[in-house]
Amino acid sequence: MFDVIKSDLEQLEETLLAAVTAPQELVTEIGTHLVTAGGKRIRPALSLLAAHGGKDFDLGRMLPLAAALELIHTASLVHDDVIDEADTRRGKPTANAKWGNQISILSGDFIFARAFRLIAEHDYGSYVSKRLAELVCNLSTGEILQDQQVYQASCDLEDYYDRISKKTADFLEICCELGGVVGGMESEDTKRLAVYGHSIGMAFQITDDLLDIMETSEQIGKPAGNDIRQGIVTLPVIRALTGSADAKELREIVTDPEMTDAMVEKALEIVKASDGVDFAQAKVDAYLVQAKKILPESLPGEIREAFVMVADFIGERNF
Amino acid sequence: MFDVIKSDLEQLEETLLAAVTAPQELVTEIGTHLVTAGGKRIRPALSLLAAHGGKDFDLGRMLPLAAALELIHTASLVHDDVIDEADTRRGKPTANAKWGNQISILSGDFIFARAFRLIAEHDYGSYVSKRLAELVCNLSTGEILQDQQVYQASCDLEDYYDRISKKTADFLEICCELGGVVGGMESEDTKRLAVYGHSIGMAFQITDDLLDIMETSEQIGKPAGNDIRQGIVTLPVIRALTGSADAKELREIVTDPEMTDAMVEKALEIVKASDGVDFAQAKVDAYLVQAKKILPESLPGEIREAFVMVADFIGERNF
Repeated sequence: MFDVIKSDLEQLEETLLAAVTAPQELVTEIGTHLVTAGGKRIRPALSLLAAHGGKDFDLGRMLPLAAALELIHTASLVHDDVIDEADTRRGKPTANAKWGNQISILSGDFIFARAFRLIAEHDYGSYVSKRLAELVCNLSTGEILQDQQVYQASCDLEDYYDRISKKTADFLEICCELGGVVGGMESEDTKRLAVYGHSIGMAFQITDDLLDIMETSEQIGKPAGNDIRQGIVTLPVIRALTGSADAKELREIVTDPEMTDAMVEKALEIVKASDGVDFAQAKVDAYLVQAKKILPESLPGEIREAFVMVADFIGERNF
Repeated sequence: MFDVIKSDLEQLEETLLAAVTAPQELVTEIGTHLVTAGGKRIRPALSLLAAHGGKDFDLGRMLPLAAALELIHTASLVHDDVIDEADTRRGKPTANAKWGNQISILSGDFIFARAFRLIAEHDYGSYVSKRLAELVCNLSTGEILQDQQVYQASCDLEDYYDRISKKTADFLEICCELGGVVGGMESEDTKRLAVYGHSIGMAFQITDDLLDIMETSEQIGKPAGNDIRQGIVTLPVIRALTGSADAKELREIVTDPEMTDAMVEKALEIVKASDGVDFAQAKVDAYLVQAKKILPESLPGEIREAFVMVADFIGERNF
């Protein structure tokens, strides 16, 4: 999917490792564990692809920005894992499982700060710094809102879309946008690419929510129905809560912080029997159609193709 | 002490409140609680005083920087309180006591990000952004190192000074330095003021460590011997560990994660009976003499006087 930027991504690994290297051995060890824990590099890849579409592409200039985007993602996952008390992520032990919560909170702070240091060192200008700071604001407020709404089974779709925007779509949007800005893309085309990023981000997050409903524990690497268990209602569940004949029973389950495994199973059953999954899948498809349609005409063929492949990949996602 | 910048500090409160205002009510509520929870505003005050010493003082330009410094401090305290499981700070409930760990971690992230957004919006240039990012890196690595060393009774003075530099002295140094930079102070004078900031920071932290030994629980608002209980050895303790006749017993206590209240009392007794307190107090005095001595000649009289008063205040500190 990212063949066209394969060598860029190889160099990115070096930039990432350098960025988490500190005079203190333990800090470097934790940072290295975190940036090599199997991230798919989707965010930096999007920024690099976007930059290739501009007239001023310069890999040396782009790498620190691409690395900062991945570091912000990494730091926010470290804090999420503390919050969710997660033991593994992508099959590897989380920082909190390995070093405890205290060090994990501090390591997340350290990685956030290293991201901002990379940006400051390379002077991308006020707009880029501001967008990145806003991104971190939104990531945290999105999580705060989610945390506040657990076990409430709120069926407000606007709230749901706002939450997944903040969590995922805004992030992918910013990756595309800032890649375009730093790569010297025309402003109109950068805007189109930003919409592309937002659309695939929405599709990505809804797919993630769908996988939590559809997959078995083995496929997904964490228990299915995890969102339900945590009191988080996602699009298929919201749909079932408003349309299913068993909506009442579903609501009773998803608002019960003490729900048992059997109740989670039952909730999954009700959602699967409703049109919630089809409804969410149709949303994903619509976002992906929109994403591909809005790609700027001016993109070089192989870059455009890569963006299309990313969208198709999200559509077929079953990892 | 800060009379000469009294109206600056009043306006700072507004900048701070605006900086933590978010479209989400809960986020604003938490942010407001945190920035109004009794902070002494020492960091922004130092930056404002320094800026007054420059030829380009402009309050409107300084306020966002001063606010960012206080926000970084606030965010790091929020995460510290989660880490230490603290219930109160400055007599008010901590964020973790009020909203739980999850929301507190995210609120800390949010406040860090708002600090960086303030800086990005006002375009102080790459140097200022870089120094602030480094500051957050150091705050977190300092805490990671401290966390790693607990209950080990390490008597390495270099480690101790490095740790309190990262925790406090570097921060006060940066406040003075960046105030000077943005206020248009001569580079040589800015450097002197940075050394002043570092010196009072060292004095401030050693005094804090001394208070933990000397004060009763009522005076200090938290149990005396708190550092010992948490396995953190500070300067007076390190001194006692290397010189006291009861060093062996002291070492047995401070390396025992299961120490009882009676053992903490005994440790405090041993430290007080040693020359550790006098030794640490002499260090404080030496730092403060150095700080006052290095103040730039060029400072306007009332600004210089304020800097001297800050140093004297730290020397007399008994809060």
